Formats: sequence, C-alpha cells, structure tokens
Amino acid sequence: MFEEFTMYDHRKLGRELGLFDSDPLIGAGLPYWLPAGAAIRQALERYIADVERRAGYQQVYSPVIGKRELYEISGHWSKYSDDMFPPMEVGGEEVVLRPSLCPHHALMYRSRSHSYRELPLRMSELGGQYRSELSGVLGGLTRVRAMQLNDGHIFCQLEQVADEALAALELIKQAHRDMGISASGYVLSLPAVDARFGDPSSKYVGDAESWALAADLLREVLVKAGLPFEEAPGEAAFYGPKIDIQIEDSAGRESTLSTIQVDFHQPAAFGLEYMGADGNKHRPVMIHRAIVGSIERAVAQLIEVHGGAFPAWLAPVQLVVLPISEAEEKLASEVARRAVDRGLRVEIAHADEGSLGARVHENRLAPYQAVIGAREAAAGALALRLRDGKKLPSAPIGQSLDEIALACDPIRSARLELADQVGD
Amino acid sequence: MFEEFTMYDHRKLGRELGLFDSDPLIGAGLPYWLPAGAAIRQALERYIADVERRAGYQQVYSPVIGKRELYEISGHWSKYSDDMFPPMEVGGEEVVLRPSLCPHHALMYRSRSHSYRELPLRMSELGGQYRSELSGVLGGLTRVRAMQLNDGHIFCQLEQVADEALAALELIKQAHRDMGISASGYVLSLPAVDARFGDPSSKYVGDAESWALAADLLREVLVKAGLPFEEAPGEAAFYGPKIDIQIEDSAGRESTLSTIQVDFHQPAAFGLEYMGADGNKHRPVMIHRAIVGSIERAVAQLIEVHGGAFPAWLAPVQLVVLPISEAEEKLASEVARRAVDRGLRVEIAHADEGSLGARVHENRLAPYQAVIGAREAAAGALALRLRDGKKLPSAPIGQSLDEIALACDPIRSARLELADQVGD
Repeated sequence: MFEEFTMYDHRKLGRELGLFDSDPLIGAGLPYWLPAGAAIRQALERYIADVERRAGYQQVYSPVIGKRELYEISGHWSKYSDDMFPPMEVGGEEVVLRPSLCPHHALMYRSRSHSYRELPLRMSELGGQYRSELSGVLGGLTRVRAMQLNDGHIFCQLEQVADEALAALELIKQAHRDMGISASGYVLSLPAVDARFGDPSSKYVGDAESWALAADLLREVLVKAGLPFEEAPGEAAFYGPKIDIQIEDSAGRESTLSTIQVDFHQPAAFGLEYMGADGNKHRPVMIHRAIVGSIERAVAQLIEVHGGAFPAWLAPVQLVVLPISEAEEKLASEVARRAVDRGLRVEIAHADEGSLGARVHENRLAPYQAVIGAREAAAGALALRLRDGKKLPSAPIGQSLDEIALACDPIRSARLELADQVGD
Repeated sequence: MFEEFTMYDHRKLGRELGLFDSDPLIGAGLPYWLPAGAAIRQALERYIADVERRAGYQQVYSPVIGKRELYEISGHWSKYSDDMFPPMEVGGEEVVLRPSLCPHHALMYRSRSHSYRELPLRMSELGGQYRSELSGVLGGLTRVRAMQLNDGHIFCQLEQVADEALAALELIKQAHRDMGISASGYVLSLPAVDARFGDPSSKYVGDAESWALAADLLREVLVKAGLPFEEAPGEAAFYGPKIDIQIEDSAGRESTLSTIQVDFHQPAAFGLEYMGADGNKHRPVMIHRAIVGSIERAVAQLIEVHGGAFPAWLAPVQLVVLPISEAEEKLASEVARRAVDRGLRVEIAHADEGSLGARVHENRLAPYQAVIGAREAAAGALALRLRDGKKLPSAPIGQSLDEIALACDPIRSARLELADQVGD
C-alpha cells in the first residue's frame, strides 16, 4: 500500500511539526512529547485501551520498578541484564527499572486463585519499560531508553492458544487499518539453530520440547490466517518464539511493531495455576501480545507514513477555524469553544495572521477547515473544507461539529455503521 | 458534608473490592492496580485530561528520568535529595528517577521561544514521580514510592497570576464536586519563620522579597475566593508558598490532595523568558497546580468516602445485567455487548450464580442493574434499578443504554445541560 508513496524522516518532521524533542539535561534516548505529539499519543493510547476493553481485556497498572529477585525468577536477570538499567538501593531493597511488563502481570495473575472458567484471562497495560541502549544508536522515537509499551498477556489453556493468537492478530490488523499503516511482512521468530536448550550458557530458558510446541502453535496460526511469512532463526525472545509483524521505515529498515508470543517458561517460573474442570491444578500458557508495541515506535511510523497528514482521529489539530475578517472573530471563538466541548482538538487561524489563502495553506495538514465569512455568520452554518480541497455541503454549526466528532472517533464510527446494519 | 457519614479504611476495602494490591517481589510502597481499581484510575485520568483541555491546558508527556544536573539546577538536589531515589549510571550519564515534574516542564517551555501573546501558557501532564519514603511509613495508596502525579504548570506574567490561580481553584472545586468529595480545609503553606533566605543551609531557595510577593498573591486569591483558610509556617515547598487543599482520611488524618503554588525560583534557575509587548525579554512566573495531586491519594480518598459505592462515572462496574433465568442469558449477553460498545463497564450476573435476590445483593455497589425477565425480553426493553433501590421507567434497550452512557460522562452531561440552556 504505502510503499508507493514518499516516506518521511520522523526525526526531521517530528521537530518541524513540534511533535517531540529532547534535551541534554534529561538525557540521551529520553525524548519528551510536545503538545502536538502528546495529542497523537493520547489519542492512540485511548484507542488501544478502548479496543482492548471491547475485545475482553482487563486493563491494569503496575509500577515501572521491580525487585532484582523478580527478574531473577523471570529469567531477565540471567539472559537480558546487559540491556537493563542498573539496580537502585532503596530502604534496604534492591529495585530496578523494569525491562518488560510480563513479570508484573504474572504476579498479578498469581495474586488471586483462578478457575478454568475464567480463562482465557486477558490482561493488558500501557506502561513504561526501560532499556539501557548504547548511546551511539539512540535517536528520535525509534531508539530510546524509556518507552511506553502496549503490552498484553493472555493466560489460557493450551487448547485456547491458537484461537487467542488468531484473535490478537485480528485486533492488530484492525488497529493498523485504523492507523492507516500496513505491515511490510510477517516473521516467525525462532530460536537460534544452536540454541543449546537446558544449558545454563544458552541464550534461552526452557526445554526443546516446549519450544517446538510453541513454534508449531504460532506457525499454525499464521497458516490459518493465510498470511505469507518467513521463519527467522535466532530472533525469538529468550522465553519463547514470536510472530513479529514488521514495518519498514523511511530508510527502508525493517523493525517489529506488533508481536504475538507463546511462553511456557514464565508460567512455570512463577508457578502459575488454574483449577481445571477435573478439580486438579493445571498450568496456564501465557501469550504475550502487543498491538503496536511501543507507542514511540508506532508514532514514528505514523509520522513516516502520513508525513503529518494524520488520520483525523490522530491529528494533533482536527479542526481549524478561519474567520475571513475581524467581524467573524467572535463567531470563530464560539465555534471553537463548541468544538472543544465535543472533545475535538481545534485551533483558530485569526484574521490578523495573514490572507485567507495563506492561512488555508498554513493549516493544510488539518483534516477539517471551517472558513467563516459573512454568509456563514448570517446562516449560522459551517462550510467545511477537507484536506484534499473537497468541500462539504454547508450545515448548521452544531450538526457539522457533531459530524466531525463522529468522524474523529473510529470506534464509534464502526459501531454506528454496524448498528445501521443490524438495527441498534 | 461527608464528615457526617462513616468513612472506610481504603487499605481494607481496596483489598476486599479487588482494587489494588502489592507483592514483596515488586517492592515496598509500589502497589499495582487490579482491573477494578485500574478502571477507576483510568476514568479519573481521562476526566482530568478532558477538563484540563477544555480549560485551555496543553498536555505533554515527559520521561520519568532526568540527569542529576537537571535537579542540581532546579534545586531539588540540594534541598530534596534525601527523598530522591539514588542515581543510575547509564552509558556514561548519571540519571535519576524524578522527584517532580516541574524541571521537565521548565525545559519544555525553554525549548521554544515565547511571546507575551502565548501567555498564560498552561502545560499539564499525568506522569510518574518517585520518592524514597522510609519503609516503615509505606502502605496502601497513600504512602507510596511511585505515584502518578496530575501536575500542571502555568507560565504567565505577574499580572496574570491571581486570575490563573483563581481559575485553577475553580477547576479543583469542580473536580471535587464531580468526584463527590469535599475539602476539609484550605491552608496557606508558608516558609518557616526562621527561613534564612539566601543562606546556603536554608531549606528554601530564593530571596525574601519574592517569597513575600508570592505569599501575598496566594493570600489574595484565597480572600477573593471567599474561602476560610489558615496559614501554616514551615509547610511551603522549597521553591515557594502554596495553597494546600486538604482532605481528611478515615483515621481523621489530614493530607493535601490539591495544591496551587507560586514559584519565582525555577523560572530564574532555568533562565525562562518571554518577549514582552515592549520588545524586551521578561521572566515568566510559574504556577504549579495539581487538581488531585497523585492519582493514588485521590483514589484512596474516593474509596474512604464512598466505600465502594462510587459515582457512576468512576464505578469499576457501571451496569450489571441480571437474567432471571437461563432463557434470558442470550439477551443478557446482547445487552452487555451493546453496553460495552457504548464504552460502559458492564458485567453479567448469570442465572446459575444464585437467586435473583442474592445476585441483586451481591452487585449492590453497581450504580445500574438491569434485571431481564420474560417481560423485558418480549418488549425489548430495560427496567433499570438504581443503587438506592429506585426503579426507572422501562425504556427500549438502546435508549436505556444511551441514557446510562450519558449519566456516566460528567463532562458531556454538563455540556448538554448547558446546551439546553443556551441552545446548542
């Protein structure tokens, strides 16, 4: 799809559009989000939380810190500590910024007893994770030391793994569609050929049998979904194989945006259990999945693909109000206020800021422009102009704003479209 | 107001209602939020972001880490380092978990040049801050080492301080009303009588004159707002005096939930500027304000005041659907799906889980209950039961759910109420 179009460098454009920036006093690989970029991030985070809840996920929050022992149990300490921040000594405890969210979620699962009736139990969080990347590779939103992860874990029975992984794949595809981005490829990431399972010096935890089973399950999902994929030995996580959904950046580099992983190791390491229909205790499987992985990488990709002309629901400014002259300034303020009341992100391009043509051009990235002249003022109506230059028929102000608000809400739009069909 | 009613212990009830918990493997003072508690937190965070945006705030995100030098400049390192986490060495840089959000916001202000026309510039964030509290005092959601702060900074001209502080006070009062909580008192927190301004060993940065001016401005705001208050020497922040809006917990202990602070120090420390109407550079004043301070403390207070019967927009479960018998299970699922589609948090109390009376009692904390029997199934209507036992007249399913969705959205409810009056 998008490969036909120009792609943009998210670092350059991010600075030009005032989306994000960094400061040596904060530190390398620790970007901050300026208001326009923060608006995109907030819209994306809310969207993800909302689609997850509709897909039966329970959202949680957990601290970005854990004790060193937590990562000794999970296996991160022995297999991943090169990428971790150093521990901190606080009140006699040794704590560390977390390298991933899964150990916290395993503890939360373990904090309550569970019956097979509760499975699949889908837990998700938007939360920080930290990686001590080398200074040389840091930059923009794609190589960072702090990231906001969209992580989810599905605790389920072995027989449920394929269906849950397929459903996660569907959720990912829907999100990519709504974001206007497309995958460059699907990869089944497998352990290295010389994995030496069971050997303490191995890069991997767990035994060969579990790894083979997990890989078979994921392969089956890709085949069932009819997706072309390649197998990549050596690209698995230390605890299990993955389906990696790849994107390509403006320089043609591939990276992983979304992922689905099958993990037999952490349920065992944390002693997770559920009570089966047979009255005995069983071990659940843990599926790790990320709809968009880190918010940082997702927004970088949105910038590179859309070059600032974001889908309306993600646009930093969704509506620009342009009074033709000083006489319409008051109505413009009123329209802006009513748009903000509807939850829209709106700006006024004031009459004294230049000719109408110049202001229209200046705000060409906004999905909706409302030019307000004497005619609109007299009629109490808005004539909306879209980004492609197309004009919508004039309509009463309240109705126009309601229509924009609906168009800027992909979940509600999809629901109403469906409701039209089934009659709700 | 609420002082007349019983208050609850949030630690006990938080555990009983499955709102939050902790784990020794994560660490002391680092609670996690279970799904029911996370639902409250998410609703509160979205509400705050939404009312802030309507009040003209620009939201930002910044990393929870900063370089040690950042806190040397802000003054935290010399006046507050006892409460800070220890620094971490990463890639040759010394970084530390932040003790507050203000230095990051000062840097973000400084990253762009500003004209007086942009002031007041209101910046806000919901972000993590960290405090190395002693182990002995940790517990529940009120004494924690990691907290999610609702912090805002208004960069403005001196003449704008009083109006901005008053507007912040109004925003705080509105939020308290929507949350169903009330302040136990207002305090003007001042420096200690023996402040020794200018002395390096002083607890405070800055000079006596700025402190007196800042205190006068805040005193004027409290008087103008007609609020009774007491003055508390020794309770100021190290950089300036504060209006502290106090709450009382179930044990009768007072603490600060919301705050408004005037700061001349950090604008000077970071060399903040704006271009005045006179063409010269001027220094802005920085107002710090928190609508609810930490989300942790706010939710603790909500639990203690409401004892689980939260206002509908904050309730972990807003609607419980109760099929009378197995025959209505299918319709109950359909109603639940349509409620989730509308963004509601909904659960089904299935027919096989007990008698209707037992299920109604079990779910008595939910603000809405929809009992579905043969009559409702035949009519395609819902008869809603409120928490106080009151019943609403039966209405078509879609309409009933739309009404609940509106009642669970305090911002939209307020807007529509206003629109009824002014005709929007």
